[in-house]
Amino acid sequence: MKSIVDGVLKFQQHTFPGLSGLFKELATTQNPSALFITCSDSRVVPELLTQQDPGDIFVIRNAGNIVPSYSSTPGGVTATVEYAVAVLGVSDIVVCGHSDCGAMTAISSCKCLDHLPAVAGWLRHADSAKVVNAARTHASPAARLSSMVRENVIAQLVNLKTHPSVALALEQGSLNLHGWVYDIETGGIVALDGSSNQFVSLAEFPQTVATQAKRSAQAV
Amino acid sequence: MKSIVDGVLKFQQHTFPGLSGLFKELATTQNPSALFITCSDSRVVPELLTQQDPGDIFVIRNAGNIVPSYSSTPGGVTATVEYAVAVLGVSDIVVCGHSDCGAMTAISSCKCLDHLPAVAGWLRHADSAKVVNAARTHASPAARLSSMVRENVIAQLVNLKTHPSVALALEQGSLNLHGWVYDIETGGIVALDGSSNQFVSLAEFPQTVATQAKRSAQAV
Amino acid sequence: MKSIVDGVLKFQQHTFPGLSGLFKELATTQNPSALFITCSDSRVVPELLTQQDPGDIFVIRNAGNIVPSYSSTPGGVTATVEYAVAVLGVSDIVVCGHSDCGAMTAISSCKCLDHLPAVAGWLRHADSAKVVNAARTHASPAARLSSMVRENVIAQLVNLKTHPSVALALEQGSLNLHGWVYDIETGGIVALDGSSNQFVSLAEFPQTVATQAKRSAQAV
Amino acid sequence: MKSIVDGVLKFQQHTFPGLSGLFKELATTQNPSALFITCSDSRVVPELLTQQDPGDIFVIRNAGNIVPSYSSTPGGVTATVEYAVAVLGVSDIVVCGHSDCGAMTAISSCKCLDHLPAVAGWLRHADSAKVVNAARTHASPAARLSSMVRENVIAQLVNLKTHPSVALALEQGSLNLHGWVYDIETGGIVALDGSSNQFVSLAEFPQTVATQAKRSAQAV
Repeated sequence: MKSIVDGVLKFQQHTFPGLSGLFKELATTQNPSALFITCSDSRVVPELLTQQDPGDIFVIRNAGNIVPSYSSTPGGVTATVEYAVAVLGVSDIVVCGHSDCGAMTAISSCKCLDHLPAVAGWLRHADSAKVVNAARTHASPAARLSSMVRENVIAQLVNLKTHPSVALALEQGSLNLHGWVYDIETGGIVALDGSSNQFVSLAEFPQTVATQAKRSAQAV
Repeated sequence: MKSIVDGVLKFQQHTFPGLSGLFKELATTQNPSALFITCSDSRVVPELLTQQDPGDIFVIRNAGNIVPSYSSTPGGVTATVEYAVAVLGVSDIVVCGHSDCGAMTAISSCKCLDHLPAVAGWLRHADSAKVVNAARTHASPAARLSSMVRENVIAQLVNLKTHPSVALALEQGSLNLHGWVYDIETGGIVALDGSSNQFVSLAEFPQTVATQAKRSAQAV
Repeated sequence: MKSIVDGVLKFQQHTFPGLSGLFKELATTQNPSALFITCSDSRVVPELLTQQDPGDIFVIRNAGNIVPSYSSTPGGVTATVEYAVAVLGVSDIVVCGHSDCGAMTAISSCKCLDHLPAVAGWLRHADSAKVVNAARTHASPAARLSSMVRENVIAQLVNLKTHPSVALALEQGSLNLHGWVYDIETGGIVALDGSSNQFVSLAEFPQTVATQAKRSAQAV
Repeated sequence: MKSIVDGVLKFQQHTFPGLSGLFKELATTQNPSALFITCSDSRVVPELLTQQDPGDIFVIRNAGNIVPSYSSTPGGVTATVEYAVAVLGVSDIVVCGHSDCGAMTAISSCKCLDHLPAVAGWLRHADSAKVVNAARTHASPAARLSSMVRENVIAQLVNLKTHPSVALALEQGSLNLHGWVYDIETGGIVALDGSSNQFVSLAEFPQTVATQAKRSAQAV
């Protein structure tokens, strides 16, 4: 904990002064353009990865970058998505998985989770990715995990579309959805191309979109 | 979205090379020392605020930095806390609220949330902070909000103690709980001192703890 | 059932006449000073144990003297606590466990509860006591059970503090919480001393309190 | 609280010695013949009313003597019923309402419960009694309340029959159900006669049963 508190003091003394103008502007308002949903994993730092400043992206982080589908008993992810879309009016949502994900490894390797009942319950929101992935043949455990991480991103995007605020914004042409997988070791990112349902390099195809807003789609 | 994708490219070309050694080490393992629970708000960037590197802190972010109390139907926060404490073995949990919080403002100003049913439901996990705060007199709406933000941190710490993994780690002397409030405009942080139930400046009292692990307490 | 109906007739003919004045007063009003939460167990009779008359204590009884923590889907215990604190304004809540508790025995001895799904679900509200107790070494199964009963009382008191009505009353200095364990064979009661987190004899330390109202605490 | 602790001391010094033989027998076992479900109301003391000793009746008490119908998310009442029927094998269940019930008054007089959200939610388990009672004409508010109390007992008996353990025990001929209403002022009890669906005086008709076990029924 000492390094964290020391970090705060360092931030206050050295980093904050250079950002004080920005923070003064942000003191009573925020206007993020995107909602970024990723894992709680300590190695995935969304603002670093996207080089965004404070105020730029609204962030949800939980184990496995899960988005439960909409239900009669909505939880925190659903509430936060609703707030981001219906109140803040973000124009993009990124669901970002990553390599070496502990949650996806547990699913992919059929780990016994009896001692982690809350984790086991939470990962049921990835069941549709799990059964899709289990029905395929994989060259190795590593390939199975890599595929699981991608299928999970796809499944969470499908879940996202069950949310009323998302459905409305897609219908109104004000929201695009993005599915990314980040590789910790190389820094590379692949993005889901909704038209081909394949993951492609974001660096090569920077305009890749998983689900395009309908109005824009019609405009094309 | 363009600035975000541009940011990714910038990260890959300019930032990643300097961190490639760290990321190589982190490719197949993480060992964060703390779980940091804070708001989805775009202005609160935990790794910036605490000057921590990738791999250092496990992060949960949702609207209002809420931690539902443990129940028979656990959700994402509960699962992620369980993973952080029981699997990763973090030694500290920080619940960090912040100034100008939209969720707390909604509660503090009795905003009608009928059009945001998921948000309204989610914020019920702050009901105990809400009623405590509403029963006090406040000099101004700003003072009421500021007090609401602090009471919410206290309430979420109480909720956290109902989680089995947290109760066990406190009992075993391996976990401390921290309650912080971050001021966006000034960069200041106040921390809950569990012994006096007061918030004090973290810069002045860097060792402030909300709930100390039992074994440590007995050692004193 | 015959002995119960016979008991009613005996009550009406022999006991009621001596209490008719009291019952006439109580016909349209009740003003209990305390909420007493204990087990459904047939051997634990709260009014006998505390020698209280009709009208004196408000009582919740269920298997295991469980108090679920506050959630967005509150049940009967939560509703009854809310009624006792917010409507009746009780000044004290006692959570009273007891020796030889069937529910705690099931947990303590890791009994398979697959054939009792509702019981198994209900006892999850004691999970935090369960994991704390399981992590300790115990001299015997009896010692393990005795410790489980005590830890369960502590866990339910923590759960109780997540309830808004309780948080408010503690804040306003109008409510104290008590944690008791009753020994059926000897009639003895030990009470949780919140300052030391130890159970002590209530007969020797009759003013023992688990959580004291804040205002009272400040007055000391 | 002082009178309660004084009561405990009085119990230990004066009452317990005369019962020590009974309590010694009960130290490690209980064998109650009936489950008695009644209100948390301080004026309704089941063991006094039925003149039963410790060990004789298993007791559930909550606001409104409510028994939620069986669902996929069972709570405390369901768990306790399951334990009483499937583990303890009680032969009778009594659901006992009472005069001047605060919960039933709230329903009967259409009281606004916005400030008591948990109570409001809990009382929805009496909705079927509420709509039945509201559809009738009543001579006075007192008559409407009295009718509401009775309809609630009937509704809770119907709910009880949705529980698997109860359905099985009824089928096997090992369980009878009883619906009572207790009058605080007079000590009188009326019991639901299942064959006529009328409430009759228990003193006059001591063998009144709401739902008789099927095997017995077939034997008649």
